[in-house]
Order: sequence, then structure tokens, then C-alpha cells
Amino acid sequence: MKEINDLIGKKSEWLKGQGPHSDIAISTRIRIARNIKGHVYFYSADDEARRASLDRVTEAMRKSRYFNKALFISIRDLEEVDRYFLIERHLMSREHLEDAEHKGLVVGNDEAVSAMINEEDHIRLQVMRSGSDLTDAWKLIDEIDTELSSFLKYDYSTRFGYLTSCPTNTGTGMRASVMLHLAALVMTRQIEKVFDAISKLGLTMRGFYGEGTAAIGDFFQISNQQTLGYSESDIIDNLQRVIAKIIKKEKETREQLIENQKEVVTDRVHRSYGTLKSARIITSAEAVKLLSAVRLGADLGLLDGIVPFDMNELLLSMQPAHLQKMEGKLLQSQDRDIRRADLIRDKLGVDSGR
Amino acid sequence: MKEINDLIGKKSEWLKGQGPHSDIAISTRIRIARNIKGHVYFYSADDEARRASLDRVTEAMRKSRYFNKALFISIRDLEEVDRYFLIERHLMSREHLEDAEHKGLVVGNDEAVSAMINEEDHIRLQVMRSGSDLTDAWKLIDEIDTELSSFLKYDYSTRFGYLTSCPTNTGTGMRASVMLHLAALVMTRQIEKVFDAISKLGLTMRGFYGEGTAAIGDFFQISNQQTLGYSESDIIDNLQRVIAKIIKKEKETREQLIENQKEVVTDRVHRSYGTLKSARIITSAEAVKLLSAVRLGADLGLLDGIVPFDMNELLLSMQPAHLQKMEGKLLQSQDRDIRRADLIRDKLGVDSGR
Repeated sequence: MKEINDLIGKKSEWLKGQGPHSDIAISTRIRIARNIKGHVYFYSADDEARRASLDRVTEAMRKSRYFNKALFISIRDLEEVDRYFLIERHLMSREHLEDAEHKGLVVGNDEAVSAMINEEDHIRLQVMRSGSDLTDAWKLIDEIDTELSSFLKYDYSTRFGYLTSCPTNTGTGMRASVMLHLAALVMTRQIEKVFDAISKLGLTMRGFYGEGTAAIGDFFQISNQQTLGYSESDIIDNLQRVIAKIIKKEKETREQLIENQKEVVTDRVHRSYGTLKSARIITSAEAVKLLSAVRLGADLGLLDGIVPFDMNELLLSMQPAHLQKMEGKLLQSQDRDIRRADLIRDKLGVDSGR
Repeated sequence: MKEINDLIGKKSEWLKGQGPHSDIAISTRIRIARNIKGHVYFYSADDEARRASLDRVTEAMRKSRYFNKALFISIRDLEEVDRYFLIERHLMSREHLEDAEHKGLVVGNDEAVSAMINEEDHIRLQVMRSGSDLTDAWKLIDEIDTELSSFLKYDYSTRFGYLTSCPTNTGTGMRASVMLHLAALVMTRQIEKVFDAISKLGLTMRGFYGEGTAAIGDFFQISNQQTLGYSESDIIDNLQRVIAKIIKKEKETREQLIENQKEVVTDRVHRSYGTLKSARIITSAEAVKLLSAVRLGADLGLLDGIVPFDMNELLLSMQPAHLQKMEGKLLQSQDRDIRRADLIRDKLGVDSGR
């Protein structure tokens, strides 16, 4: 799809590097799960019923002013590289690739709003913002949800709240998360303590590339666990409060690092930047780690004379499917690592000499 | 001693980076052990006898035309940093520091010829050349030896040859070595095979910083083991033949690396260069490893646009005592690692921003 190719040149709203606490908070994401009354749930539905729910949701989305000029994508029709490309852009889940018949993806302007149709629920609506911006993200997704509910009748129980395919989502159907760059807490080995505290508060911490991935390069997604028995605003408030505390702790730790270990941190930051500018073959995992150190260094003012580059955009575009889309063909693993190193040197303003 | 300070700005003959096979052979060294007839051997000698042999040898050396304008150093009078400085320049052994009373060091022009007096033998004469130049080195040391023997009567047995303090040196009293940069053989894990072959041929392989040191950064000193039962020219010829074979093997392996693993080697070389240009704290061991990769890369033409710098001089001057002499004071370990990183960036033409 030509329209998907266009995304690669565009700047996702949530990657702008702006918004509250954008020195430490990369982005905010809220998604809500909804199902349509009278339609069989996806996993129980036959072909006919799946098509019916896809059509019904698509029809409603087309009426939404929030999905005006949106891209309507049929997962079945996607080429393989485009599927992974959309996953890498955090627009859809890996699970959305299974049983691809009768599944849809709607991508709104700036990729700030999007929706999976017929993932495990009929609707998985998503809003993304840059920085730590749970309040605005919630405000927006709530508005879209309210509008959609005027076109569709949701499956809702006065006792449980929104009903979902998996009981872990029942209630609010909401998962809110903020991605944080906790480089100083990792460097000083305090991240485990943060992890323990978060678990006790009913929250979870995941890696950069989403659910089921290990944390690499000091980027962590912090999200609510519970959906049942709490209101959306209670959950958002609780998450917001914890995020603010973690950000404060990370900032304090950065100051302590500068005070007590400036030489060691400066060394690490400059080595990381030097390696990124020099490598000819580099894996995603290593590049994220190095970029993480450079991000820390830039924030601490340790990298004078650095050629300005768009860190968030680079974190996104150096992923395998993005590299392959840019190259216009499938690439073997080592070739991807070579193209990734080329891309990084290019973005960092190094004359690649190829 | 002011004269020792002058050495730091001078270029040792053997570091010129010229001479036969200087792409792979860094330097050649021959030393011979001699004792003076009628003088008690150092370890058995009392103070009086030690002073007598020191005086006797010094007197002869002062007459030698090869030690014209030489620096005559009393080990006892050396400051600590100067002692290690001279060891780092390969002008004397670590053992020469023990029982420092009545010990001398004579350093000739360009540091190409030198002699320890009263190390374990009365005389340890040394000649160094750049590249693999055993023939010329032997020619020179033999001339000096002949001249000295006109001023001194050596302890010599018609049955055993030259008599020495330790029986492992008896016979020729000669140890000849060539320092090779075997980066490709290390990278392709063939160095163990070379090591095994060398042992069977009565030769030994040692690390960059001499006897008892591990090989770091792919620099190896290859020398003869035997001194008894062979003539000097037999030993030199044997060593020469083996060195030539190893150099040939290293060159072939470099060509194969370029043919089969160009991307991987290029990556490693550029990362090494990038790290050297970026690090703010660096140990000797790491710096030697990285410089080794850069030396290989430069030789293979993989480092376009590299600012020319004197690799051999840097390998020498980044050692602890050299750093401390340049700084004019003793430095703690981490401070040395910081100064070393500063020195390297400076030599590599990086604006250090300090």
C-alpha cells in the first residue's frame, strides 16, 4: 500500500520529543478495549460473524471526525514487511497478525490515534502523545470513545463495566502506559528497586519494544495492571503519581551521577557516541543501548559539539522492517545490521565513505 | 636527571616504523650477557666487589666509540618514576631495580644501543632496530662486543662459551627477538598453532611489555631459547627463517580476511578507532588492543581519512611512567587512565574539549 510507504517519511506525533517531562518521558499511550453488543466475540466468531463485526466497526470509524482522512488497512492484504513495519511503529500488536482474515487497522492523522479492529476485541482504540501526558491522552481517547459510542452500542455490564474477550481487561478495558528513559537508575543499579515498588502498586514495567520484550537500553514502559474495580480517573491518577515519583528519582540520580562520577559517565557517553559514529555492523539491541547513553549524555550536557539528530526517529527507523522498507527489499540479518550502521552514521552526520 | 627528561621528546631508533617488513615487524632486539674475568659475579659479590665491577665496566664503556655521547646512569640515584620510565622504554629490566646500589645503565645515541651494568651479569649489552633486522642488529652488537673485549677480558670457556650468572644464558649469552604484530592470526584464532610450532623450534613467544607479560593487543615478541651448543649465526638464521614464515602467514591471513570478512574487519577497525577518539578513561591494556586493530586497519587500507599519527610512539608514551613524566608528578591509577585517554585523543587529532 502506497499510503503505508508514506508513513516512513512522516513524524509520529508521539515521537516529537515534546510534552511534559520529555527529557525522561518519551511517550504516553492509552488504549481501550471495546466490543459491540450483538456481535460474537472474535475468537468465538465464524468467518461470517467476523466480517460482520469488521464491517460494523469500520462503518462507525469512517463516520468519526477523529478518523477523518485516516488510513483504513486490511491486515489480510498487507505485505509481510508492512505488517512488521506497523508493529514497529506501535500501531498494532503482533497478535493482530494471526488469523489475518477480517481484521482491520485504522491509522489516524499523525499516528496519534489508531484502532485495531478484530484483534481479540472488536475495537482496540489507541491514543499516543509525546512526553508524559496521561491527562490529555485520556481526555482525547475518552472523547473518541464517546463519539464512537453514538454510532455503536458497546457490550457493557453495569456490574463489571466494559466486557472484553479476556477477563484481565474487563472493567475499564483501559491500559495506560508511559515510556521512560531511566538511564541513571539503571547505571546505579536502582532499577530493581523501582521494579519491585511498581509491582506492589499494581503496575507493570516492560521493555522498549512492548509486551513480552526485555528492557533494553534503559527504556521502560510503565503501565497499569488493573482494569476492574477502579475508575479510569483513579487508574490514571495513580499511574501519574507513580510516574512523577520515578521521574523525580531519575532526575535526582542524574544529578548525583554528575556530582560523584562525572568522569565515568562522560567516558561512557562519549564511547557510546563514538561507537555509533564508527560501527559498520550493529544490532538493534546494541544500538538502543548506545543511543540510550547518548540521550543521557546530551541531557546532562556532556556531549558538546554533537551534531543534532532526531533520537526518537532513529530509535524507530532503525528497526528491521523499517530498514527493509527503506531499502525496498527483504534483507538478511547481517545485511540489516550493516544498513542499520549506515543509517545511524548518516543520521549522526558522519560521511559514511561507502 | 635532566638528560632522562630529554629522552621523552626523542624518537627511539627502533620505533621509527621503518626497516624490513615494518608493516608487521615492529622492532628487533639483540642482547648479549658478558662477565668480566677476575670479578665476582653480581649475586655472589659483596659491596666492594660490586663497585669494582661497575667501575671496571663503566670505564671500558666510556672508551667505546659506540657509547660516545652516551648517558651514564646510576640506578641508585634514579627517582622512582624515572626507573619505570626506563623500563617502559625497553632500556632496562624490572630486575635491574633490585639491589640498586652499584648498578648502572648506559644509553647510547637514539637508544639504539644500551647496556645494563651489574644486572645479573656484569654486562647486558643491547641493540635495537626498527623492523625485522636481525642481520644488521647482530652485525652491530658483534662490533661493539669486539671493541669492548679489547678493553675488558671476558669470562669465557672454550668448552661452554661465554659464562653467565644463570646457566640458561651460557654459551652465546645471546637473546635475539623480533616483535611482530600478528593481528590477523589472532583474529582467525591461528595464533595458538603458531605458538605450538614456535615452541617445537626452540623459540619462545612473549607479550608486548617483555618477559613475563601476557600478550595484549596482538603484539608478540619471538625469541630464541637456546644459547648453548649453537653458534650465534645459527641461532640468528633459525630465528630469521621462522620470523619470515610467520610474517608470510600473517600477510596471507590478512588477505584472506579482506576477501572473506571485509565487513566484520572494517567494523572492528572503525569501532576501535572510534573508541580511541572518544574514550575519556582508558587502561593501557585496552588502548593497546584498540591500537592494534587500528594498525591492522591502516595497513589493510580500511581507514580512509585517518589523521596520521605515530602509532609506535603512542604505544610507548601512553605507559604509566611516561604519562607521569609528562604530567610531572605521580598519578593515581584512574588519573593515569584519564591522562592516557587525553593523550590518545590529542595524538589522534581530536579536539579534547577539556
